[in-house]
Amino acid sequence: MPTDFASLRAQFDLPDGMIYLDGNSLGPMPRAAAARVAQTITQEWGALLIAGWNKAGWMAQPAAVGDRIARLIGAEAGSVVMGDTLSIKVYQALASALEMVPARRVILSDSGNFPSDLYMAEGLCRTLGPDYVLKAVAPEEVAGAIDHTIAVLMLTEVDYRTGRKHDMAALTGLAHAAGAVTVWDLAHSAGALPVHLAACGADFAVGCTYKYLNSGPGGPAFIYVAPRHQAAVRPALSGWLGHAAPFAFDLDYRPGDGIERMRVGTPPVLQMAALEASLDIWDQADILDVRAKSIELIDRFIAGIEARCPSLSLAAPRDGQQRGSQASFRHPEGYAIMQAIIAQGVIGDFRAPDILRFGFTPLFINEDDVDEAINRITHVMENALWDRPEFKTRARVT
Amino acid sequence: MPTDFASLRAQFDLPDGMIYLDGNSLGPMPRAAAARVAQTITQEWGALLIAGWNKAGWMAQPAAVGDRIARLIGAEAGSVVMGDTLSIKVYQALASALEMVPARRVILSDSGNFPSDLYMAEGLCRTLGPDYVLKAVAPEEVAGAIDHTIAVLMLTEVDYRTGRKHDMAALTGLAHAAGAVTVWDLAHSAGALPVHLAACGADFAVGCTYKYLNSGPGGPAFIYVAPRHQAAVRPALSGWLGHAAPFAFDLDYRPGDGIERMRVGTPPVLQMAALEASLDIWDQADILDVRAKSIELIDRFIAGIEARCPSLSLAAPRDGQQRGSQASFRHPEGYAIMQAIIAQGVIGDFRAPDILRFGFTPLFINEDDVDEAINRITHVMENALWDRPEFKTRARVT
Repeated sequence: MPTDFASLRAQFDLPDGMIYLDGNSLGPMPRAAAARVAQTITQEWGALLIAGWNKAGWMAQPAAVGDRIARLIGAEAGSVVMGDTLSIKVYQALASALEMVPARRVILSDSGNFPSDLYMAEGLCRTLGPDYVLKAVAPEEVAGAIDHTIAVLMLTEVDYRTGRKHDMAALTGLAHAAGAVTVWDLAHSAGALPVHLAACGADFAVGCTYKYLNSGPGGPAFIYVAPRHQAAVRPALSGWLGHAAPFAFDLDYRPGDGIERMRVGTPPVLQMAALEASLDIWDQADILDVRAKSIELIDRFIAGIEARCPSLSLAAPRDGQQRGSQASFRHPEGYAIMQAIIAQGVIGDFRAPDILRFGFTPLFINEDDVDEAINRITHVMENALWDRPEFKTRARVT
Repeated sequence: MPTDFASLRAQFDLPDGMIYLDGNSLGPMPRAAAARVAQTITQEWGALLIAGWNKAGWMAQPAAVGDRIARLIGAEAGSVVMGDTLSIKVYQALASALEMVPARRVILSDSGNFPSDLYMAEGLCRTLGPDYVLKAVAPEEVAGAIDHTIAVLMLTEVDYRTGRKHDMAALTGLAHAAGAVTVWDLAHSAGALPVHLAACGADFAVGCTYKYLNSGPGGPAFIYVAPRHQAAVRPALSGWLGHAAPFAFDLDYRPGDGIERMRVGTPPVLQMAALEASLDIWDQADILDVRAKSIELIDRFIAGIEARCPSLSLAAPRDGQQRGSQASFRHPEGYAIMQAIIAQGVIGDFRAPDILRFGFTPLFINEDDVDEAINRITHVMENALWDRPEFKTRARVT
């Protein structure tokens, strides 16, 4: 049965008049979220207290929810577990990946990777020692830079600025042929487009849930470890919930079974409840339908903006298959323009130095929203509404 | 004005008939928690969406809430920030502490430290290289083991099993005299007793909030860095929210100002809201009153159990000043006995191999609770109610 997008849209609560094209930064609130979290607070925490860890399933939840995420990213059951933040999961995946290629010292990434991934890699290299190196090339030079010196290829599949999408299958194949291991960041992929981790032969993957997966601010991250690697992975962040027997309180660490060893500390039970409310909506969606509709919406948006706002130049790939679920445009006054667009109730965001970014999520955005967004953006551009001092002050970017 | 404990107690919701002596594992639910979190979900996430980061103060919250915690642990304003889990914060503090003593390779801890702290240290040593060593001695041997080989003294102030409390001021002094740096875990201290980080000259401290601080399952951890060290600390977990300018999206990491650099990824906004509901209660308590009453309650409990249950032998220090806010007893059949006690509605917990553990929190436990708990435990012991097969099955300890 095809996905019923009108029904999905009705399960989100969005402010009247707002066209929210920033679900790629923070997804909107499922209507069921507040009640679901309140239930966890009063009926689980309040009523069960410490017994909630077993009786309410909090202890098993990170792997159980991981399996729900696995279905959206083409991963095997038992290969995904929730916890921590994406930055921590990047560190964890990268440390384990490097250990699998002990004779090499180079992490290859690209300048389109999200900065936190690069920063975490930098911190890990510093901890490992002076011969470890992070090498970041331009996105289009990645394939050519994969050689026998590379230990780990670490990439975000979809560029957070332009929406350009790497070819996961091809790059994973090149990395493996060169003897390297892959770490894929799915921040802008999970819930945005079909991902095929198992089919691509990916080794490690990580992602967050507060973007396209709509888990709310601070929702937990996830980590994927290919089943073929799980028994050999020895976590650098060896926390007690990744121990083979956390409640034996051994003095020495023994990694837990399979993906459980990638757990670290106490899982964020309240955030997990909000995520589950969102995944209930995802259970009603077919990611192939979502992808097809997302491409339609973005094609429509790009055509409208290019026709009516010629000073905005397209930064995203024109071919829908080559991009994630966002449209990006460049303009030297991008920051001020985005503030003016937001003032018109179309919420996108700005990414330095000159990118205007608009995310499209068919779960709650439809053709009428796209047309209205084009109208309002055109109104801003035709009347130069952005050319005001109040839109040019960049309070947060220091 | 003295703390009004009856008023504090009325602000918690506890199941009828339950005497909850496990707040040292998971604190109970403040009555205001569900409404506070629901408000964050609907009025902040739902209504503000991405703008919540600035307009609802989510971005500033980890340091603002850190300041509220600082008051409870004798820390300077601007020295505490929230985020991640305690295990992650241990790793982070330890990595920074080791870097401050580059010529040394030994972490000194004790066998009474919480296992996750030891596991995280083990993982960090493995990442740093084969000459890094974690040395764990018996708790009473710590002072004698501090010498000029020790880089970092890492201890949990209050032993999670016995409740024995280390002398933070004395051990910090010994460590400094030997040229070592200290990392104190306050998991069983924060909200349990007065802590004087600044007065003790502590270097780093970490702690969780879901125990005595009642933030709920998976509540965020905190980290303290002494102001004198902050400018020199270079985080190993160098995430984007610890960057000097997260929204500049630089490719290279530059640590943020002061304690902000110890942030890593996106903070758990929903868990933070629950924590704030609990801190509103803490604002009405004087930690000195809490400590005095906690000692009274535990003295009363120990006297009653020793008088009426002679087969339970005291494992906690008899002197209230030498222990945290818990009473512990030993019995070879401790596991089964605790299950039987729980079946009587007195909730404590068991810690391998033979410890029965009872936490006392004057915020919601009073003298009547203590007396009733003694009665019920005596009933279990006098009638050997624990000697049943269903209480001897240890499903979770494998």
